[in-house]
Amino acid sequence: SEFEYVRKFEDWDALAPSNWIVVRIDGRGFSKFSKRQNFSKPNDRRAIDLMNAAAVEVVKQFTDIVVAYGQSDEYSFVLHEDCQLFERRAAKLATSISTAFSVEYCMQWDKYFPGQILERPFPTFDGRCVLYPKKKILRDYLSWRQADCHVNNLYNTTFWNMVKGNPVTDTPAMTPTEAELALKGTFSKDKHEILFQKFKLNYDKEDEIWKKGSVVYRKFEDKQSVKEPTSENQPPQSRNERGTEQGKKKPLSRTQMEKERKRKQKARVVVEHIDIIKDNFWQENPWILE
Amino acid sequence: SEFEYVRKFEDWDALAPSNWIVVRIDGRGFSKFSKRQNFSKPNDRRAIDLMNAAAVEVVKQFTDIVVAYGQSDEYSFVLHEDCQLFERRAAKLATSISTAFSVEYCMQWDKYFPGQILERPFPTFDGRCVLYPKKKILRDYLSWRQADCHVNNLYNTTFWNMVKGNPVTDTPAMTPTEAELALKGTFSKDKHEILFQKFKLNYDKEDEIWKKGSVVYRKFEDKQSVKEPTSENQPPQSRNERGTEQGKKKPLSRTQMEKERKRKQKARVVVEHIDIIKDNFWQENPWILE
Amino acid sequence: SEFEYVRKFEDWDALAPSNWIVVRIDGRGFSKFSKRQNFSKPNDRRAIDLMNAAAVEVVKQFTDIVVAYGQSDEYSFVLHEDCQLFERRAAKLATSISTAFSVEYCMQWDKYFPGQILERPFPTFDGRCVLYPKKKILRDYLSWRQADCHVNNLYNTTFWNMVKGNPVTDTPAMTPTEAELALKGTFSKDKHEILFQKFKLNYDKEDEIWKKGSVVYRKFEDKQSVKEPTSENQPPQSRNERGTEQGKKKPLSRTQMEKERKRKQKARVVVEHIDIIKDNFWQENPWILE
Amino acid sequence: SEFEYVRKFEDWDALAPSNWIVVRIDGRGFSKFSKRQNFSKPNDRRAIDLMNAAAVEVVKQFTDIVVAYGQSDEYSFVLHEDCQLFERRAAKLATSISTAFSVEYCMQWDKYFPGQILERPFPTFDGRCVLYPKKKILRDYLSWRQADCHVNNLYNTTFWNMVKGNPVTDTPAMTPTEAELALKGTFSKDKHEILFQKFKLNYDKEDEIWKKGSVVYRKFEDKQSVKEPTSENQPPQSRNERGTEQGKKKPLSRTQMEKERKRKQKARVVVEHIDIIKDNFWQENPWILE
Ligand SMILES: Nc1nc2c(ncn2[C@H]2C[C@H](O)[C@@H](COP(=O)(O)OP(=O)(O)OP(=O)(O)O)O2)c(=O)[nH]1
Ligand SMILES: Nc1nc2c(ncn2[C@H]2C[C@H](O)[C@@H](COP(=O)(O)OP(=O)(O)OP(=O)(O)O)O2)c(=O)[nH]1
Ligand SMILES: Nc1nc2c(ncn2[C@H]2C[C@H](O)[C@@H](COP(=O)(O)OP(=O)(O)OP(=O)(O)O)O2)c(=O)[nH]1
Ligand SMILES: Nc1nc2c(ncn2[C@H]2C[C@H](O)[C@@H](COP(=O)(O)OP(=O)(O)OP(=O)(O)O)O2)c(=O)[nH]1
Ligand SMILES: O=P(O)(O)OP(=O)(O)OP(=O)(O)O
Ligand SMILES: O=P(O)(O)OP(=O)(O)OP(=O)(O)O
Ligand SMILES: O=P(O)(O)OP(=O)(O)OP(=O)(O)O
Ligand SMILES: O=P(O)(O)OP(=O)(O)OP(=O)(O)O
Ligand SMILES: [Mg+2]
Ligand SMILES: [Mg+2]
Ligand SMILES: [Mg+2]
Ligand SMILES: [Mg+2]
Ligand SMILES: [Mg+2]
Ligand SMILES: [Mg+2]
Ligand SMILES: [Mg+2]
Ligand SMILES: [Mg+2]
Ligand SMILES: [Mg+2]
Ligand SMILES: [Mg+2]
Ligand SMILES: [Mg+2]
Ligand SMILES: [Mg+2]
Repeated sequence: SEFEYVRKFEDWDALAPSNWIVVRIDGRGFSKFSKRQNFSKPNDRRAIDLMNAAAVEVVKQFTDIVVAYGQSDEYSFVLHEDCQLFERRAAKLATSISTAFSVEYCMQWDKYFPGQILERPFPTFDGRCVLYPKKKILRDYLSWRQADCHVNNLYNTTFWNMVKGNPVTDTPAMTPTEAELALKGTFSKDKHEILFQKFKLNYDKEDEIWKKGSVVYRKFEDKQSVKEPTSENQPPQSRNERGTEQGKKKPLSRTQMEKERKRKQKARVVVEHIDIIKDNFWQENPWILE
Repeated sequence: SEFEYVRKFEDWDALAPSNWIVVRIDGRGFSKFSKRQNFSKPNDRRAIDLMNAAAVEVVKQFTDIVVAYGQSDEYSFVLHEDCQLFERRAAKLATSISTAFSVEYCMQWDKYFPGQILERPFPTFDGRCVLYPKKKILRDYLSWRQADCHVNNLYNTTFWNMVKGNPVTDTPAMTPTEAELALKGTFSKDKHEILFQKFKLNYDKEDEIWKKGSVVYRKFEDKQSVKEPTSENQPPQSRNERGTEQGKKKPLSRTQMEKERKRKQKARVVVEHIDIIKDNFWQENPWILE
Repeated sequence: SEFEYVRKFEDWDALAPSNWIVVRIDGRGFSKFSKRQNFSKPNDRRAIDLMNAAAVEVVKQFTDIVVAYGQSDEYSFVLHEDCQLFERRAAKLATSISTAFSVEYCMQWDKYFPGQILERPFPTFDGRCVLYPKKKILRDYLSWRQADCHVNNLYNTTFWNMVKGNPVTDTPAMTPTEAELALKGTFSKDKHEILFQKFKLNYDKEDEIWKKGSVVYRKFEDKQSVKEPTSENQPPQSRNERGTEQGKKKPLSRTQMEKERKRKQKARVVVEHIDIIKDNFWQENPWILE
Repeated sequence: SEFEYVRKFEDWDALAPSNWIVVRIDGRGFSKFSKRQNFSKPNDRRAIDLMNAAAVEVVKQFTDIVVAYGQSDEYSFVLHEDCQLFERRAAKLATSISTAFSVEYCMQWDKYFPGQILERPFPTFDGRCVLYPKKKILRDYLSWRQADCHVNNLYNTTFWNMVKGNPVTDTPAMTPTEAELALKGTFSKDKHEILFQKFKLNYDKEDEIWKKGSVVYRKFEDKQSVKEPTSENQPPQSRNERGTEQGKKKPLSRTQMEKERKRKQKARVVVEHIDIIKDNFWQENPWILE
């Protein structure tokens, strides 16, 4: 029709090739929402279990997601650097993942908060795409989120203990403002000390789920690498097909890709509360970033 | 921390100022979903009522939306050209609106499809931002969607009638492929003719909701313009404050903006099935694009 | 070849349609360059004549430029909102115009600075594209540059007079630092006053070239509008051709466009030192922004 | 002033961090220009020497350029992945390099084409930035350009020989159209064969400058790596300073950077006609991409 020219105003927002794509989603206004829903402080197990349950479904649905990391009201979904989902269109990726997550969160709410009614405004999550050009920098991104989790959790644990107070050690309850003031300028070890002395709490023994956050990924029983089929079971490729993607890495054929997708869909998706800053996790699961 | 440098990889995606922003959302894989859920053909009233119910909630929640238009599995939300929501950040706008819509759709599902269970993958909607630099072009955008609604509906109505067949006029049922073939190359008036001759159906008398789609907007009782408080009730402004926004238009003060938001929140949000291609609607509701 | 995949890393940088495009170029390191070449202070006539001569050639070469405005070491070239040059690709536009300008500046140097050798680093100009969605905002852009010219010139004129001093009125020469300090916080009328009292200089009588900068545009003898051929001499157009561009404005046929380009190439390009903030200039030359 | 709001329409076009930046410039309309200036066919030594002379000056001027590759009317300038020049602003980079090159080309014209007058339109070069996220892909980019050089040169050499004809072997001159037709579908070895049989020309013995194009880079006498000062001569750095850039690589201090820049400015810039597709060149000059 005569109006179709308006189509030209849409810009093509494909993300640069050969970059790891992180879609980070974050709860909108969760300070308020967590209060309204009486989340326990500093951490609410039901809330975090619900986040993780939603993330697991998203990872299952989007086989291009290679790993996800979550804490508080946020989750980061990592798409492989060669991912072609939606032709790498940024808005498609960000909205598809954040709507899937938001819907899962709301639909599973009853299971984790039974009898607690979800009222408007319903919880939703904003989302964005961020590109990381190298594996190393992607890992630094994930380390950033996990370090943030740790720092916040130590702070929040100390803060809320101070606000509650501890009669056993004659530690009076503080107002939030007082606690905030008291913690200003303290270092990590000071907080450990306060927790230990005043609240008889050994922070190192706190649950890993709070200290490390949650890592979601596919567990393959056969441990076979995802992206590197052995050369035996590969059809010979013509020169034209070679190297069409980053470097000389051979792209998978359509059949292989479909097979790969099936394999991923069958894989168990696990949630673990482990360190992803050090090399260990990555060495034990080398195919994740392969 | 030493990892914070990864922050720099996020780009600032603010949309160009003084452009109308359309956030168009569209159901992901609704061809399949509508079959799975047995939507009636060509149009399912429950489905469209649910779309509209979700849109109304989105419009209520985002007071920056000045008007919305929906049809089939899509909705276009128009944000004012001076909108500052999320500092006009594209990903924030697209994901906030598409998650809000998706969640509403799923949470209200039971009301419109009682007893019909919603299974995974849950319905979600992708979203994108498109910029329109002038009022005229924005109107052409909306006209494009409404013309599309009309053309598709005429086609679908004819198509599904042909597939059903009509014993009264000795019109045998066709296979979808046959109907498609038969309609190839036909013009609008040919389809009108087929509907009338073979199916005794006067297309012009079909429900407006199918022919026009749905327009959602705020109805103000007092008809006072939204963006143009009369000069009497306005405080004098210093030279510095003048014209900081597009042209010399005076920006609203914080108090005025808050008042305006309240006024919008109180306004009734209506759904109408009317023509928005011609000038009529816009002349009767001039404040929408003011 | 197997390497061709690298092509995909180039992004398509077409500018949004129906926006006025300004390419602003600015001399790189002209503070240093103007000193090295002993430009007179505050203004050097040869330097500004050279800028204008270069701009005239650029306007002649790029018929999509509708008007240009220059002052100091900068020039803004305005391309029509419907301009299709280089398919509106930002890098092509910015680099083509800034290289053309830079080369003209260097090649014409000898004519304006005879005997004064141009040594490395040769003068060059950076460039950028900026989009303005409405005529009004484009005019505000040009007003911004001209107001900047005026403010800077008044300051510079006062500053350099103070640095020179005036024995007639017993005004001793100041150091640059002293002059800067003395002018801090002064208003426009204070500077007028200083110039008049201490330097016997009526600022209003200064050359317009310094107060207003330079406006470059095509002067049509026949005053016929550029973009709106009268309907008589236009072939009838099919519905399809209508409205393919912004609004319902009829696009020119290929032959008309070629004719239009020829007409522009023949037109005289003029340099004027006049006000473009008020409406006068635009009313007298309405076709410029049509 | 009241107009300053127009500033907000400029977008911030910084290129993503930790990506190699290629600025490729290419002569505008050089098919026409080379004819007008009677460039010899298929290759004009003066023309290519001029291109190289201009490139050398650009490399000298922009110390962030680590290597450049040129052929025909184009040059690719590679900026280090950590380059911070102009805060990585795309338009600044593209226009600064393309204007510098264009001006050098015009200013040095007389030296390479003595007595041959340069008339309007003066030769200029468009430019663009392209990002390559990994060293490997950057090398593929350079390989792409060099392979292109080779393929074009083989074609052009055969083509122009056919157009000239060779009486010695009774090979009649062809029209360009005939030669084009005759070469359609031929492979590399066919062209070698034609050249050898009909024109007694051993392609492998053609000048390397035509077969390989030109590589421009800094030759360091001391072979000390550019980006990796040994740890002895480095001041200790605080934790905060570490890893602010990609990975844990230590950023240089301001003094070190200035020293480094000086070192680069003193280095000899060389032009070589050698293979950059294989690993040899890169192994011998490892600091280039370090
Ligand atoms: N009590 C409680 N609060 C939680 C828990 N998990 C998250 N939250 C709250 C604490 C923070 O106020 C908030 C997350 O911080 P954000 O920076 O995302 O802020 P918020 O979501 O309010 O604003 P935003 O829309 O993301 O800008 O969620 C929890 O387990 N228990
Ligand atoms: N039977 C029936 N189908 C409907 C109704 N409304 C929408 N649909 C279906 C018809 C179309 O196949 C589909 C909308 O077309 P789209 O172009 O959005 O395709 P789809 O959503 O399948 O794919 P997408 O993920 O958007 O690319 O939804 C309805 O009321 N009744
Ligand atoms: N003496 C003198 N100086 C002039 C004249 N026209 C321009 N200039 C100088 C004054 C300013 O220092 C400089 C223009 O200011 P800019 O803000 O463009 O700075 P500059 O070019 O040094 O740095 P840039 O590379 O543009 O960031 O050019 C003139 O006619 N006479
Ligand atoms: N005779 C001759 N021609 C050359 C030489 N070097 C380059 N050229 C010509 C051959 C090509 O027609 C032209 C380069 O091709 P391009 O694809 O860059 O096309 P052109 O510059 O005409 O158009 P453009 O503005 O870049 O799109 O320059 C030379 O050494 N001798
Ligand atoms: O939302 P925050 O405060 O956790 O931090 P952010 O998500 O980086 O901020 P923004 O949502 O404004 O991009
Ligand atoms: O999804 P369609 O087919 O209605 O059309 P579109 O939304 O313009 O296509 P895309 O979703 O691929 O941008
Ligand atoms: O260069 P200036 O100082 O005149 O101002 P600008 O051009 O707006 O600044 P930049 O060149 O850094 O964009
Ligand atoms: O200019 P060409 O034909 O060498 O190829 P290109 O530079 O990739 O094309 P364009 O200049 O249109 O981007
Ligand atoms: Mg946030
Ligand atoms: Mg949040
Ligand atoms: Mg958060
Ligand atoms: Mg779609
Ligand atoms: Mg759909
Ligand atoms: Mg649709
Ligand atoms: Mg500047
Ligand atoms: Mg300058
Ligand atoms: Mg300047
Ligand atoms: Mg080109
Ligand atoms: Mg060229
Ligand atoms: Mg070329």
